[in-house]
Amino acid sequence: MPASPGQLMAAEIGDQPAVWRRLFTDRAAIDTAAARIAAARPQFVLLVARGTSDHAALYAKYLAEIRLQLPAGLVSPSSLTLYDAKPDLRGTLLIAVSQSGASADLLRTVEVGRRQGALTLAVTNNPESALARAAELQLDVGAGPERAVAATKSYTAQLLTLFLLLDRCAGGDGRAAARLAELGDAVLAREQGLAVLAQRYRFAQRLLVTARGYSYPTAREAALKLMETCYVSAHAYSGADLLHGPLAMVDREVPVIAVMSDGPGGTALQAVLPRLRAAGADLFCVGAPRLLEGCQPCFALPDGIDESVAPILEILPLQLLTLHLAMARGGNPDAPRGLAKVTETL
Amino acid sequence: MPASPGQLMAAEIGDQPAVWRRLFTDRAAIDTAAARIAAARPQFVLLVARGTSDHAALYAKYLAEIRLQLPAGLVSPSSLTLYDAKPDLRGTLLIAVSQSGASADLLRTVEVGRRQGALTLAVTNNPESALARAAELQLDVGAGPERAVAATKSYTAQLLTLFLLLDRCAGGDGRAAARLAELGDAVLAREQGLAVLAQRYRFAQRLLVTARGYSYPTAREAALKLMETCYVSAHAYSGADLLHGPLAMVDREVPVIAVMSDGPGGTALQAVLPRLRAAGADLFCVGAPRLLEGCQPCFALPDGIDESVAPILEILPLQLLTLHLAMARGGNPDAPRGLAKVTETL
Repeated sequence: MPASPGQLMAAEIGDQPAVWRRLFTDRAAIDTAAARIAAARPQFVLLVARGTSDHAALYAKYLAEIRLQLPAGLVSPSSLTLYDAKPDLRGTLLIAVSQSGASADLLRTVEVGRRQGALTLAVTNNPESALARAAELQLDVGAGPERAVAATKSYTAQLLTLFLLLDRCAGGDGRAAARLAELGDAVLAREQGLAVLAQRYRFAQRLLVTARGYSYPTAREAALKLMETCYVSAHAYSGADLLHGPLAMVDREVPVIAVMSDGPGGTALQAVLPRLRAAGADLFCVGAPRLLEGCQPCFALPDGIDESVAPILEILPLQLLTLHLAMARGGNPDAPRGLAKVTETL
Repeated sequence: MPASPGQLMAAEIGDQPAVWRRLFTDRAAIDTAAARIAAARPQFVLLVARGTSDHAALYAKYLAEIRLQLPAGLVSPSSLTLYDAKPDLRGTLLIAVSQSGASADLLRTVEVGRRQGALTLAVTNNPESALARAAELQLDVGAGPERAVAATKSYTAQLLTLFLLLDRCAGGDGRAAARLAELGDAVLAREQGLAVLAQRYRFAQRLLVTARGYSYPTAREAALKLMETCYVSAHAYSGADLLHGPLAMVDREVPVIAVMSDGPGGTALQAVLPRLRAAGADLFCVGAPRLLEGCQPCFALPDGIDESVAPILEILPLQLLTLHLAMARGGNPDAPRGLAKVTETL
């Protein structure tokens, strides 16, 4: 029997705390990979991914820069594929992130990267995939089969895997992630309020999501989910880049979602809110309770979450909002128009 | 007497070929900087910028990856500013790109970068700026005072400066750029057709710009110009990323602008056009004549432009389109609502 609209996505959103619990409990493969990486002493981290996985890669870029104190960059895959660049990648850790592990351009990037001397790592949800087999190291994010086209559990499983890995590389024990599964259950239990809020955006044409620092990938991922399932024109900007142009398009007709985790990123974003309010923005804030004063509507995340793991938790209310909005708009978030689950790009 | 709406932007768009001619003719400072960079033999290139300058930085990232065969990345400024990261940057070339040279976050990034061992270069339109003085090397893009808030001539001057510099670092003589000024004059002479086309988008709410490879920064820059001066929700996606989600929001109500230069990037994008057409997209193509067959409306760029310099030329018709659309919508592209010429971000 075919699933009713949104049924797959709803189930996969609900699976997330259990996926995180398993990842946190069984870290043998992550510890082994971290030891290999630490031994190689990389000087530079490159990441390559597409779509939702690209937001997990962006999160890992912040971790590499801040926790590992290494310069990091996102590869433009076309440089190595279409333009056939052959950079010297000795001393580079190249991490490819992909749900399916099936994208030809990522595979080729890993193959070229490995040949050019990089230590290569594939982070996928399919340990049998071509990408996982092509890389020297591989980690299975263990989210289980994901059937909705809009990725949810594979995304947060990627985030947590990358956090546990890079935190381990930096000598940490992952403790900032210890309570995430329990907190995730508590957040998901508050679905009803988000279903009500979704009604507010039933006829929105455009939407803007903003955040800074660690939470910026959350803004990007929320915007992509809204675009692909609700067909709304959703932009994501860092709070800083917003002031360099895009602020001009904000008015009363543009709802804004601000994500503010408890740390330097969220605090810096708070300073941007008056500019958004002055432009007439209709604001919904998700974040740490201490930053939400005067914000209505808002969704308060549990207190005391380290900013470096906040992205794993704060995407949950935005996934639920997207799910309910897509259905309110008459769509089917399990199978958006024009998209396939596995995207082949060259 | 205050300028009439769009007068400043129109004049600055028109200045561009003359700016390019000067840059191409007097390359002593660029050659000196290139020699210093070549002598330092960097292993990685990091770039940092905001807004329009970030698109010039993205263009330079492609040049670094493809022409210099070096891994490259765009720094997340907040890592070094808000989060106080102190990466080891020996062996890294750090290039900051800024029109004003006045952004506090870029200044701090260059200061930290230099202290951490990077060879630092500031590319600005103000050689007296704090950013230019903070970097070990500096290049003045020489666009002259830019008064319209929407940057145009400073952008293409940044592109050409970065091309001439990185081409020189790779042992080239910049010849791919030799005819740009002359071709620029010819493109600008075709303004009237773009003024007519602008009428078509008078009531568009959303818009999408797409390209691949070297031209991807053009798509990003065109979308930003449309957002900041026309208040339209304009998205930019690489032709590959488009297929990983955003394609779902394309329908008959979403005009799409495709930029296709003559090379691997434009050719790869051509393969995406049938998907856009199948989704009902209203398509306008800008690019090399041989790629425009069957595209209507279109704007054919002169033949025989090397793809690595095409971004300098192909933004011109999109600047003109933006100028006329902003005025058709009753705005003033010289001074968009909510924006200042120099943006202070921390």
